Amino acid sequence: MTSSLKPTAVVVGVGAEQGLGAALCRKFASQGHHVLVAGRTQAKLSRVVDALVAAGGSGEAVVTDATKEADVVRLLDRAMAPGNGFAPADLVVFNAGNNRHIPFLDVDAALFEEFWRVGCFGGFLVGREAARRLVPLGRGTVLFTGASASLRGKAGFAQFAAAKAGLRMISQSMAREFGPQGLHVAHVLIDGGINGERVRTLAPERVKALGEDGMLDIDAIAETYWQLHRQHRSAWTQEVDLRPFKESF
Amino acid sequence: MTSSLKPTAVVVGVGAEQGLGAALCRKFASQGHHVLVAGRTQAKLSRVVDALVAAGGSGEAVVTDATKEADVVRLLDRAMAPGNGFAPADLVVFNAGNNRHIPFLDVDAALFEEFWRVGCFGGFLVGREAARRLVPLGRGTVLFTGASASLRGKAGFAQFAAAKAGLRMISQSMAREFGPQGLHVAHVLIDGGINGERVRTLAPERVKALGEDGMLDIDAIAETYWQLHRQHRSAWTQEVDLRPFKESF
Amino acid sequence: MTSSLKPTAVVVGVGAEQGLGAALCRKFASQGHHVLVAGRTQAKLSRVVDALVAAGGSGEAVVTDATKEADVVRLLDRAMAPGNGFAPADLVVFNAGNNRHIPFLDVDAALFEEFWRVGCFGGFLVGREAARRLVPLGRGTVLFTGASASLRGKAGFAQFAAAKAGLRMISQSMAREFGPQGLHVAHVLIDGGINGERVRTLAPERVKALGEDGMLDIDAIAETYWQLHRQHRSAWTQEVDLRPFKESF
Amino acid sequence: MTSSLKPTAVVVGVGAEQGLGAALCRKFASQGHHVLVAGRTQAKLSRVVDALVAAGGSGEAVVTDATKEADVVRLLDRAMAPGNGFAPADLVVFNAGNNRHIPFLDVDAALFEEFWRVGCFGGFLVGREAARRLVPLGRGTVLFTGASASLRGKAGFAQFAAAKAGLRMISQSMAREFGPQGLHVAHVLIDGGINGERVRTLAPERVKALGEDGMLDIDAIAETYWQLHRQHRSAWTQEVDLRPFKESF
Repeated sequence: MTSSLKPTAVVVGVGAEQGLGAALCRKFASQGHHVLVAGRTQAKLSRVVDALVAAGGSGEAVVTDATKEADVVRLLDRAMAPGNGFAPADLVVFNAGNNRHIPFLDVDAALFEEFWRVGCFGGFLVGREAARRLVPLGRGTVLFTGASASLRGKAGFAQFAAAKAGLRMISQSMAREFGPQGLHVAHVLIDGGINGERVRTLAPERVKALGEDGMLDIDAIAETYWQLHRQHRSAWTQEVDLRPFKESF
Repeated sequence: MTSSLKPTAVVVGVGAEQGLGAALCRKFASQGHHVLVAGRTQAKLSRVVDALVAAGGSGEAVVTDATKEADVVRLLDRAMAPGNGFAPADLVVFNAGNNRHIPFLDVDAALFEEFWRVGCFGGFLVGREAARRLVPLGRGTVLFTGASASLRGKAGFAQFAAAKAGLRMISQSMAREFGPQGLHVAHVLIDGGINGERVRTLAPERVKALGEDGMLDIDAIAETYWQLHRQHRSAWTQEVDLRPFKESF
Repeated sequence: MTSSLKPTAVVVGVGAEQGLGAALCRKFASQGHHVLVAGRTQAKLSRVVDALVAAGGSGEAVVTDATKEADVVRLLDRAMAPGNGFAPADLVVFNAGNNRHIPFLDVDAALFEEFWRVGCFGGFLVGREAARRLVPLGRGTVLFTGASASLRGKAGFAQFAAAKAGLRMISQSMAREFGPQGLHVAHVLIDGGINGERVRTLAPERVKALGEDGMLDIDAIAETYWQLHRQHRSAWTQEVDLRPFKESF
Repeated sequence: MTSSLKPTAVVVGVGAEQGLGAALCRKFASQGHHVLVAGRTQAKLSRVVDALVAAGGSGEAVVTDATKEADVVRLLDRAMAPGNGFAPADLVVFNAGNNRHIPFLDVDAALFEEFWRVGCFGGFLVGREAARRLVPLGRGTVLFTGASASLRGKAGFAQFAAAKAGLRMISQSMAREFGPQGLHVAHVLIDGGINGERVRTLAPERVKALGEDGMLDIDAIAETYWQLHRQHRSAWTQEVDLRPFKESF
């Protein structure tokens, strides 16, 4: 890789401009990456790309359903051959997922499967396709977004915790298998509410009640992802937690 | 429930006579339960039932694919209305699962899904159908068979660990949601090789190499499941590990 | 060991008759052990021994400060040569400890040390002296009483958690080192209030508020300790949790 | 605090110039802190300070036995009133500790206590004295150096794991108690050999055998400590692990 080329980064799971996915894209672009902005909705991706470019960065939208193998293969193929003078990807983030409280007896089978498909199976596909391309190169970073539910099953969150704990095991298994081959795989446990578009729109009073910095700032989260990518291979992190200073845990 | 009626127990995931599923059936039958012996293969179930009956116990085979919602519903319906003078179930065990080392880059999507379906989704169905019937009664025990992979993802075991960690979260979430309603939900972490028919047939030299009691005796495991069922509700276990005395961990 | 001799058990940390230590003594005596009832206060020990004997069991009081090496050596020497036709010990329990909420800034150095001495150092001495005598025999059980603080440090409990987490590491290290030599070492995580003399006297309204079986019954706890001792060495538990069915966790 | 004043940092547990403690001092000094270089040996401290100053930084040696309350009080008093135009401390690191494999039966009581005093009690004193001064200010960072033994007790390491697990609980308890008051408390789990003066001198062949970047680079570790200090309070880390890319875990 010539040093004069911008390396490519991939962020899977980008939605609203004020979401974590978009913040990750912004951070990586600001640090000199060409960013593949991947998510399900073209219009949202375009807005994120436009903002990157307006800020002097570089990126492109890649409509991707991370639960579809063909989509993920295509995305990672693109990431390794980005054209336009960009260098192949050295950073891939899987950030998809959703969450909702549902009494266990009301979780229907299709919903349980849907949580798994989006939160775990998609991560498997992205992780595997990234590893297939990065391991032969002996370098790169793959990051997964986790949650407190990755570690603990709570009443009303079985469907979410089952998916997230599965995703964590993918991350751990990959780290153990591919670390010695030069691929850095890490898992970020986000514990607390993310101060993003979703909560601001749906529950503005909750944001207010938590007070200043009572929810995770998306740019502050993105900073830690970036630091993980920058770590020296003699001192890699596999797992790190992030929570607001006020958060009870 | 009249004390003169045998209560029913359900064991999902019964295969060979020398497997853990069969040992659980034997234990519960020997302690006075009528046992629904559930698994995919009629011939195997029949052999287990025949052995129970020959030993003076009571049981019946229920061919069940635990990954099929209709099968699980039917099984639990049967468990709560067993007829023949038996009392409704107070003990349900989910013991299905499989394991295999596969390099991560070789795990195809269908296989990853199959591991999840058998090891996690089936457990969700059994857990939910059991809870739907037992929670209203304010009593009962639901037990899940876990593994060391429930806690740790290792190279070559992502597909297994992702399923098992998901199953563990189901167990934990259920325990937190239903414990206060009188349903005891526990998870048994089996760490080490089970000295069952499979390993004896496929790898007899491994059994020999490990020496006496170097693998988990299936009846010894079954004893702990039984003790969990018998625990007083003021002192319930949510998770317990089991491993051979020689096992490195 | 001739089968006609009662084996000896040792319980360190016995206080009031309605405490866990006393319940462990009763359980072991009822199962045929001669019990060394060890604790700091002769009068309390005597009452426990009297009750054992009145119930047809066998035991003797051994005044012991578990934080004093000489006391622990003497106790374990006695345990291995109990005289009177009893067989040497095959079961040793370390059950000492205390707990109290103290704001961190108010924990003085002497108090921090006192918590460690009682909750961790005493456990080290008992564990080591037990292992020195049991490992050469290739058999026996050593059990430690833990708490939820063994796993988590909470506001106001640093001094307790630091001691308990240390004790847990002793238990784990011993299990890994001595398991393969035939010594079973296990740790019981007690999560919730114990329905013992202390809380009944000091906070009867709390017991009432928690309702029936809302606190851990001491005899129910003791049952699990006993089952751990009885486990077959092919399927040993290293750690088990116990909590009331209603307990939030 | 006027922005023109250098804030003070404290590093407790500084020894050789090629050790982690010294690397932390260098990092903080290079980022504009005045550093209190604390450890037991004046000559070593002086060498570290000289190097800081030679590199354009600022620091001073404070001979400190972290197991002595008076020493720790004096150190933190100094940290909050550093004079010479420096601002009070906003960053305190507890980095003391030692490690050695010892068969459990050979751990004598004095040695077990010594490990606790250096690895846990010293951390308590430093943590408490730091919190007493920083909590009223509503800001600051306290970091603790942990190890894989903080989480797991292994054969031959009971004395080390018991101390390190205790230290981890101090860190967790402090984080839960003081996070909401603006004090950031975090724990760094270092898993693997540190490529420092000790191992280079005592076991150069081990360093060689592990190959390039097979041991943790001290400056790479220091980078993560620095990033923890810089985190925005809406997204604080409580625990992070660090290990060489090749490390088996």
